[in-house]
Amino acid sequence: MTQKKNVLFIMFDQLRFDYLSCQGHPHLHTPHMDRLAEKGVRFTRAYVQSPICGSSRMSYYTGRYVHSHGAQRNNFPLKVGEFTLGDHLRNGDIDCYLIGKTHMQADEAGLKRLGIMPDSVIGARQSECGFDAYIRDDGLWAEGVGGLYDSKRSPYNEYLKDKGYEAHNPWHENANSALNEEGDIASGWLMQNADQPANIKEEDSETPWLTSQAIQFMEERREADKSWLCHLSYIKPHWPYIVPAPYHDMYGPEHILPVQRSNQEKAHPHPVYGAYMENLVAQSFSKDEVREKVIPAYMGLIKQCDDQMGRLFTYLEETGQMDNTMIVITSDHGDYLGDHWLGEKDLFHECSVKVPLIIYDPSADTDGTRGTVCDELVEAIDLVPTFLEWFGQDIPNHIVEGRSLMPFLRGEQVDDWRDFVISEYDYSTTLAAEKLGLEPADCRLFMVADKDWKLVHAEGDMRPMLFNLNDDPEEYYDLGDSAAHYPVREQMYRHLGAWARRMSQRTAISDDRIKMMRGKALEKGIFLGLYDGSEVPEEKVIPIKGKGQKAT
Amino acid sequence: MTQKKNVLFIMFDQLRFDYLSCQGHPHLHTPHMDRLAEKGVRFTRAYVQSPICGSSRMSYYTGRYVHSHGAQRNNFPLKVGEFTLGDHLRNGDIDCYLIGKTHMQADEAGLKRLGIMPDSVIGARQSECGFDAYIRDDGLWAEGVGGLYDSKRSPYNEYLKDKGYEAHNPWHENANSALNEEGDIASGWLMQNADQPANIKEEDSETPWLTSQAIQFMEERREADKSWLCHLSYIKPHWPYIVPAPYHDMYGPEHILPVQRSNQEKAHPHPVYGAYMENLVAQSFSKDEVREKVIPAYMGLIKQCDDQMGRLFTYLEETGQMDNTMIVITSDHGDYLGDHWLGEKDLFHECSVKVPLIIYDPSADTDGTRGTVCDELVEAIDLVPTFLEWFGQDIPNHIVEGRSLMPFLRGEQVDDWRDFVISEYDYSTTLAAEKLGLEPADCRLFMVADKDWKLVHAEGDMRPMLFNLNDDPEEYYDLGDSAAHYPVREQMYRHLGAWARRMSQRTAISDDRIKMMRGKALEKGIFLGLYDGSEVPEEKVIPIKGKGQKAT
Repeated sequence: MTQKKNVLFIMFDQLRFDYLSCQGHPHLHTPHMDRLAEKGVRFTRAYVQSPICGSSRMSYYTGRYVHSHGAQRNNFPLKVGEFTLGDHLRNGDIDCYLIGKTHMQADEAGLKRLGIMPDSVIGARQSECGFDAYIRDDGLWAEGVGGLYDSKRSPYNEYLKDKGYEAHNPWHENANSALNEEGDIASGWLMQNADQPANIKEEDSETPWLTSQAIQFMEERREADKSWLCHLSYIKPHWPYIVPAPYHDMYGPEHILPVQRSNQEKAHPHPVYGAYMENLVAQSFSKDEVREKVIPAYMGLIKQCDDQMGRLFTYLEETGQMDNTMIVITSDHGDYLGDHWLGEKDLFHECSVKVPLIIYDPSADTDGTRGTVCDELVEAIDLVPTFLEWFGQDIPNHIVEGRSLMPFLRGEQVDDWRDFVISEYDYSTTLAAEKLGLEPADCRLFMVADKDWKLVHAEGDMRPMLFNLNDDPEEYYDLGDSAAHYPVREQMYRHLGAWARRMSQRTAISDDRIKMMRGKALEKGIFLGLYDGSEVPEEKVIPIKGKGQKAT
Repeated sequence: MTQKKNVLFIMFDQLRFDYLSCQGHPHLHTPHMDRLAEKGVRFTRAYVQSPICGSSRMSYYTGRYVHSHGAQRNNFPLKVGEFTLGDHLRNGDIDCYLIGKTHMQADEAGLKRLGIMPDSVIGARQSECGFDAYIRDDGLWAEGVGGLYDSKRSPYNEYLKDKGYEAHNPWHENANSALNEEGDIASGWLMQNADQPANIKEEDSETPWLTSQAIQFMEERREADKSWLCHLSYIKPHWPYIVPAPYHDMYGPEHILPVQRSNQEKAHPHPVYGAYMENLVAQSFSKDEVREKVIPAYMGLIKQCDDQMGRLFTYLEETGQMDNTMIVITSDHGDYLGDHWLGEKDLFHECSVKVPLIIYDPSADTDGTRGTVCDELVEAIDLVPTFLEWFGQDIPNHIVEGRSLMPFLRGEQVDDWRDFVISEYDYSTTLAAEKLGLEPADCRLFMVADKDWKLVHAEGDMRPMLFNLNDDPEEYYDLGDSAAHYPVREQMYRHLGAWARRMSQRTAISDDRIKMMRGKALEKGIFLGLYDGSEVPEEKVIPIKGKGQKAT
């Protein structure tokens, strides 16, 4: 048995916590992910640090809150110098690779200011969120009248072109569109086409392509001694909502979960929630015909993901790597799919901010927890310290803000676990901000939630939102201005205040070094407070005694 | 008249706000600083961001709170990449020089991690807090049994040696010690020697030396066209408390201010305050004989500083530079000097956390405010934006957290000025932390003060302190656990919470750029929420239409 230990850190994009059969979905069977849950621990209260791709991921990859790393929204750069998972792992001589999506925006101005060449090893890692990119593909090769959304090279389009797909943008025209009877593109962007099969061979679509990349990566490293973490970061089931055959018609309206929404919610919504309900995507998803077209496609995408997990796990088993590889399955956020009169993610209802989280650890000391669930309050930032502990590295607590989940995997009693989770959202670049007339710094929401209550604070002089998670698990009744709930809000604000004051930027000196400095000033010649020197032992003051030479 | 504009940003170290005659001291006459106040604006409520040298200065030099930049205590590195005054000024082609002290600890590990050579221009500026060091001297060339406090080269000791002082460490043996009758060193570290004259020619002591450096700097640049800011950062009146003749016996016990302390304070002090009262320096300063020896020396040091200001202003006047040079006089914090049973600084009583601040602006548009005082709540971080506005530069509000004081200099009415000030203190390296049994992250205090109240929050599950600044300007009565003052504490905690949640790390993207991103996703091809495309104008959806090629 080799000493080599690996981590396969698998992330799906926009995968709702309740769209796996092990999480209770009655119609969407995901036997492969369920199998992993049976071999590992399934966390039922895992929250992301921001319900939007880029910011959530920057927290997953740094182990730090959004408020700490500052990449508050998609395409806001992660500052040069922020410590990442890759930095920490490489300190322990562990490789850290990326396959797929990060949505990381490099801090080009910062690199330039510090004189770091983007194509140097240091510059490349700073530009890739600390990963060595085996393949980087953010999976949004969208193009509009104003140009491309993502101006990087598109490895997936290159792959499809190599395979003989001749379109200008096969990502759109093949992987994310159907063809109608006239031979015209039926774009996956238009949700009326969600029930059509994508115009691509299933094996060439995005999820199998990335799985193949991962298997190739692991094959290449099978004989090498060096341990690695591989972040296998899928693009799906994120929109465009369209999937190749046979997944396009596996599910119908009869398989979709009942919509979770109430007219109560429209009565006097919080201003930010109200603005989001007016969004085009929210308006669309509020129509049953849209949900009935789209959700079966979303389920098909997830079914395809699960089948690819089967392929991946089979490879790991057949090559014996299941015995030395920790496997994590999670998502960067959920999807409203019409619940709460919303589409997309962005706000803090459970379907948006809670994610699936399954951790399989092959080590014998976790045998006792296989197939169990953990209901503790878990955050995305907990994965970085979990990985570090698993690899036997120290966790730099002056940098990393999450906590290792290893005690839960080992079935240990943890008495001082966190009492609340935090998630944040910045909507400064949206039309909602424009409608509400807010400056960028005021377009910020903070969720603080425990097992009983969820409070959402809004900057910009708005009232908070408050939900009772026990009495109202559907989150229909906003108690944000209920006089009777003033004490609850005060308690949640105390949590939020304690969190906001946390020590998050003293990252350049460790706790251990600080403790070593205690009371050492006198040794370094700071004779502070002495009147005649008798206050301390004679030998300590010798350095300031002696014969002097008169100044002339 | 040239277009050249300069700033002389003068900082004294440990100068109490009330030890100038213009600030009300009845015996310490400081005519030169008073003269500057008569030509400028004197701010009566200027607070530092932390009552300790290094952290306070890192806020002065970045325009950011300690909680934002993370250099929470002396010798905690300022992270590579933090934006400094020098970065901002150089964006506007203004030079930014240092003469004297910064107490900046370079982030050597960070430089190495990012591959920045410390001796490159970028590396040197990163290591000098953004300044180009004309001369860097932190003025603490202390040496104990464990070695030197500061391991850098000592320009002042080099200067003294060049001048013929032959001691091992003339900073200590000459500038900061006297000689007793036996010819032995009577160290300035021992406060019993504070009434002796330092064993140095007055003109060679630290304050005249730095003044000479400043005059030399300005002479060298007199003919050049480029504008500059020069941070002239004195080492004094910081301890060791000893001063050369004739300043050593200008003042006696009859000239010292009555001690501000009350037995009330010792009754049931806050645990942190209580621990600080037990410090050696506090015990010493609680003795009248110590105060009577030390405070006259402290006053002599200030008198010498004032005389050097006279020398400097005369030079500026004689060379015509008084007409294009903004001059600022301030300090990094105060000094307890036995008030409140304490020595040193560290805590948040006014004598420690409030500083003198005088700003002279030669521009005609400030003529209306000359000789006036401003009682608004001002913070150290306000100087960076003040300088930027004065030089005509934009203030990057996503980075700089202070606000320009220029409106006050121009006598403008400011309706939305801040309601409260914040100061912070980290005592994690102290023996007080050890005594209280606290982890480093819990050794943090936050002061939030308005014109009426001052609350000090302590991490680590301790009660807060609260003072009524109107009824109890001496701050003798701690109302931190007074039931009647619960609503006041709640209000102050709301201020603190709002501050702690502030946007402080989104420094890599500006507000303007964010506003330009609003509603632009569709242009970039993100056709989100469309059902059939009819929701937006036909020309917008053209990029996703067209003839497709069937995948085979």
